[in-house]
Amino acid sequence: MKSEKITSTANPKIKELRSLMEKPREREEKGLFVTEGVRETLHCLDAGFVPRAVFHSPEISGDGLGKILSAIKENRHLSAASERLCIFEVSPEVYSRIAYREGTEGIVAEVHAKKPMRLDDLRIDVPKTGKEPLVAVIENVEKPGNIGAILRSAEGCGADALIVCGKGCDIYNPNLIRASIGAVFRIPVVTCTTTEAIDWLKKNGILIYTAQLQDSETYYDTDLSKGCAIVLGSEDKGLGNEWRKAADGHIRIPMLGRLDSLNVSVSAGILLYEALRQRMAR
Amino acid sequence: MKSEKITSTANPKIKELRSLMEKPREREEKGLFVTEGVRETLHCLDAGFVPRAVFHSPEISGDGLGKILSAIKENRHLSAASERLCIFEVSPEVYSRIAYREGTEGIVAEVHAKKPMRLDDLRIDVPKTGKEPLVAVIENVEKPGNIGAILRSAEGCGADALIVCGKGCDIYNPNLIRASIGAVFRIPVVTCTTTEAIDWLKKNGILIYTAQLQDSETYYDTDLSKGCAIVLGSEDKGLGNEWRKAADGHIRIPMLGRLDSLNVSVSAGILLYEALRQRMAR
Repeated sequence: MKSEKITSTANPKIKELRSLMEKPREREEKGLFVTEGVRETLHCLDAGFVPRAVFHSPEISGDGLGKILSAIKENRHLSAASERLCIFEVSPEVYSRIAYREGTEGIVAEVHAKKPMRLDDLRIDVPKTGKEPLVAVIENVEKPGNIGAILRSAEGCGADALIVCGKGCDIYNPNLIRASIGAVFRIPVVTCTTTEAIDWLKKNGILIYTAQLQDSETYYDTDLSKGCAIVLGSEDKGLGNEWRKAADGHIRIPMLGRLDSLNVSVSAGILLYEALRQRMAR
Repeated sequence: MKSEKITSTANPKIKELRSLMEKPREREEKGLFVTEGVRETLHCLDAGFVPRAVFHSPEISGDGLGKILSAIKENRHLSAASERLCIFEVSPEVYSRIAYREGTEGIVAEVHAKKPMRLDDLRIDVPKTGKEPLVAVIENVEKPGNIGAILRSAEGCGADALIVCGKGCDIYNPNLIRASIGAVFRIPVVTCTTTEAIDWLKKNGILIYTAQLQDSETYYDTDLSKGCAIVLGSEDKGLGNEWRKAADGHIRIPMLGRLDSLNVSVSAGILLYEALRQRMAR
């Protein structure tokens, strides 16, 4: 474990860190991403991610660094990594340049990304898992905060995975990580084309329910208790034709006022939890 | 109707507009707020709000201004206001200083706020409305984006009002307006203390269900079909004791993973729509 003090915001380590926070391409090329705050970093380490460096501001972090280091020590998967870990003590001024939000306990970490998951890596085998699969699918949903909130709901209701089609966003986007409260480190996320997703769902006998207004049935009048995928498009444009055609059913959330949709993460939460409700009620 | 060209970002009208966008106190003192984009502004005018000024950038807005002006003309409540309306044509450079987001059709409007609603203004009389009341209540929920999304769900499920207790945020916050997609102009919002809200709900025979983990029943096993309020606290601290004690029931969203809560706007959506589901199923 190396340790070093940084007091200048012009330090190359700080520049690299900021670049990882801000640029998806930088994250992809280096295979690194950034977590902020003690809680977020602990969620990440608990899920077996390997840290490269921890930046801490002792004036702010209190025993934040201690908590991070003991989590690394207690995790046998991280013992090798802990030897190569770099610890940077930064001044409060430098910290204010690298902290995205206030009150995040003086801790920022650089972490190695895992290899992207593929559809065939997903484990949704009913005899093995003992439960009907539940998969969330989004197409052209781009706001990191919404995708993060969907992951949080997916974890809450016991969904097996999130499949991201069309335009999406880098799953290591700092806003996505934050909004997911760490769920992004635990729920499998697969990015693929719509065609690939449909083929995989069909092959695995997972029913496809698309959220759409036209030709649809109220979601709570639809049987979501069998293994199924809930598919949502963007709030303004909805889902593409490929999904509509492939669907086993079209489901609609009643909209009693003037608007024709809810926030996409709210819609996802309502539909995923309806599947859970029906399965628990059986 | 007055018309004027603005080509400098230092123009006092532009400075005042930016101040209204950024400062809650400025909005409160002047009784004005700001809408951005054609759709948002039309939602606002449709709800009977009176515009003071429209800023438009012809290079960007296309026929945006035309749409706004015909909406004002067609609304008989706004005919008096239309004579006093100021139209400012701004250069693209000035527009880029006053536009919060991209692609908003070159329209920004200054609008007169309505008098804040009080609890006694709410109409929840079952014999008159013919339906059981459904009220959303939040305590210490501060993020404008979340409050906006809650309003959007409240409108979607036919809720009667949103009551905001504790720390909240100015309902004319630009992020709140945007996230509500105009629902904030249609759904009654009352800001009051927790004690006032509880007294009013009890007086009107509205049952109180608090979202909380401890001593609670799964939300879908709870009867939400009678007139009731769904009460949610902040994601990190939950609800204060006053609500817990006043409650007719404590309800919980199952959390199957590592986290103990969902995004507050997702929780609100799930619980409000469960009330709708139960009422429709009767």
